[in-house]
Amino acid sequence: MSTPLGRRPDGLDAGVNEEVFANPRSDRVKTVRNLIARAGRMADDRRVVAEGPQAVREAVAAGCVGDLWLTPEWDDREVGLAFAVRDAGGYVHLATRAVLDAMSAAAQGVLAICTWPDVGLAQVLADGPPDLVAVFEDARDPGNAGSAIRAADAAGASLAIFTVGCVDPRSAKVIRSSAGSFFHLAVAGGVPLDETLVALSAAGCQILAADGAGRHDLLESAPPFGDMTHDDGSSPSSAGGLGLDLSKPTVWLFGNEARGLSEEAMALADASVRIPIFGRAESLNVAMAATLCLYASAQAQGNR
Amino acid sequence: MSTPLGRRPDGLDAGVNEEVFANPRSDRVKTVRNLIARAGRMADDRRVVAEGPQAVREAVAAGCVGDLWLTPEWDDREVGLAFAVRDAGGYVHLATRAVLDAMSAAAQGVLAICTWPDVGLAQVLADGPPDLVAVFEDARDPGNAGSAIRAADAAGASLAIFTVGCVDPRSAKVIRSSAGSFFHLAVAGGVPLDETLVALSAAGCQILAADGAGRHDLLESAPPFGDMTHDDGSSPSSAGGLGLDLSKPTVWLFGNEARGLSEEAMALADASVRIPIFGRAESLNVAMAATLCLYASAQAQGNR
Repeated sequence: MSTPLGRRPDGLDAGVNEEVFANPRSDRVKTVRNLIARAGRMADDRRVVAEGPQAVREAVAAGCVGDLWLTPEWDDREVGLAFAVRDAGGYVHLATRAVLDAMSAAAQGVLAICTWPDVGLAQVLADGPPDLVAVFEDARDPGNAGSAIRAADAAGASLAIFTVGCVDPRSAKVIRSSAGSFFHLAVAGGVPLDETLVALSAAGCQILAADGAGRHDLLESAPPFGDMTHDDGSSPSSAGGLGLDLSKPTVWLFGNEARGLSEEAMALADASVRIPIFGRAESLNVAMAATLCLYASAQAQGNR
Repeated sequence: MSTPLGRRPDGLDAGVNEEVFANPRSDRVKTVRNLIARAGRMADDRRVVAEGPQAVREAVAAGCVGDLWLTPEWDDREVGLAFAVRDAGGYVHLATRAVLDAMSAAAQGVLAICTWPDVGLAQVLADGPPDLVAVFEDARDPGNAGSAIRAADAAGASLAIFTVGCVDPRSAKVIRSSAGSFFHLAVAGGVPLDETLVALSAAGCQILAADGAGRHDLLESAPPFGDMTHDDGSSPSSAGGLGLDLSKPTVWLFGNEARGLSEEAMALADASVRIPIFGRAESLNVAMAATLCLYASAQAQGNR
């Protein structure tokens, strides 16, 4: 049965009434699997894959889905998904659970191939200094990288940057671990560290390095609850005993969990900040550290 | 070559000079693999497995290693490990990397079988109300559970409790994800929710439910930096506009990421607290939520 969008060159129908694709060994399945598995992305490949309901919903809401693959069960359950994808000019393919499982062990019956632009730093800086940015150096674990993107989103950051040497933030596992937050803010990957920090600094952001041996204690820099103005009229964050003003436009810099930040990164930072450890843990992972630092900034900036 | 500890009944030598165990298909390898893979633990089985250098180091420091398996390379690199294990009455086995890999994909060349007691609530409460406790309901993801234990450790909590229906906190993946923090504080699993909360409440702890729709805003309850006393002499946390005193002995209650806390759990809590979301993320994962809540308490309690 034909649809307003007509037929694709490959002959597959774009409507919800199309036949259910049932061959897990087909070339189309292999193509999707390869897209998910690829280690290095071509620089001009703007496709990303959203696996599972949560990531797919956010991709659909962002209007970037080129191809939505889902089981008839999911199509019945969330009718809006297919409609939204077709409205935005995308294609919808019904497929068996076996096909979805063959495409991705994480699909849970629904998966989307999206076209998502890489974000250029110039683009982001065009509107003046961003209030809150997270920059990651040498972040290797895709699960932690995705959680860190989620933390940046929750704290209201507008940009997450993964410098050269990090995991590809556009990889399927990062997107999945971000619980869809990947589609909520600008995420840049493969950017040189020095250029990034110099540009953000020139734009008016302070660069704070999260470091286990940092000079400032994050908790001593946090603003108080309630009344946000001190007796002398200063803002509570600028009155911090340690000279750190978290209410200013801020770039947080996070390093590798085992090795910390490089000397180069530390040299480019305006100040270093430590998260105090009260128990016997050696450190926090990068997602937890990002959550605490970015929320401290959000609180100081009065993002609410 | 014999050692002060002599020989085990199975004939394996306990010294560092023993032969290098090289058969990845042996029964001993299978035994370890089964120990790691088991879904349900027997209630009286006190063995836990630490995989990889970080978890093993902490297990060795905790003096609970019964059997240390490591490659000659690791034995050369961290001589102290084998000494410490033998000093504490444990056995050391050199093995090839292939053997270690066959035991666990996460061993990275070093693995420990530990004897670690289950913690009873009565035991923990014997010394009066603990200052800071994390209780998890319906926590299913072992990676997040491990990270949450790490957060509890970092924030100085003395106890992490996983109620009935949660992932087994003694499973190898939870221990690994805790980065060794499992061995730093009391971790209890399979405990009934109601009994736990009633006992902690009776001991003098306030029960705070972390909930997306909570009545109190976590950040508005956080104490200020710097001067910890207000003009009227009150402590800053008790002066919180929202009536929440984070400096008191506190039990934080965390629910399932998708479903939140049960009605039963909410009913047992003294107050509900939300983490504000500034961006477009729907929520934080349980490890990130635990990090923010437990650190807010640590800060208010002046754990430093």
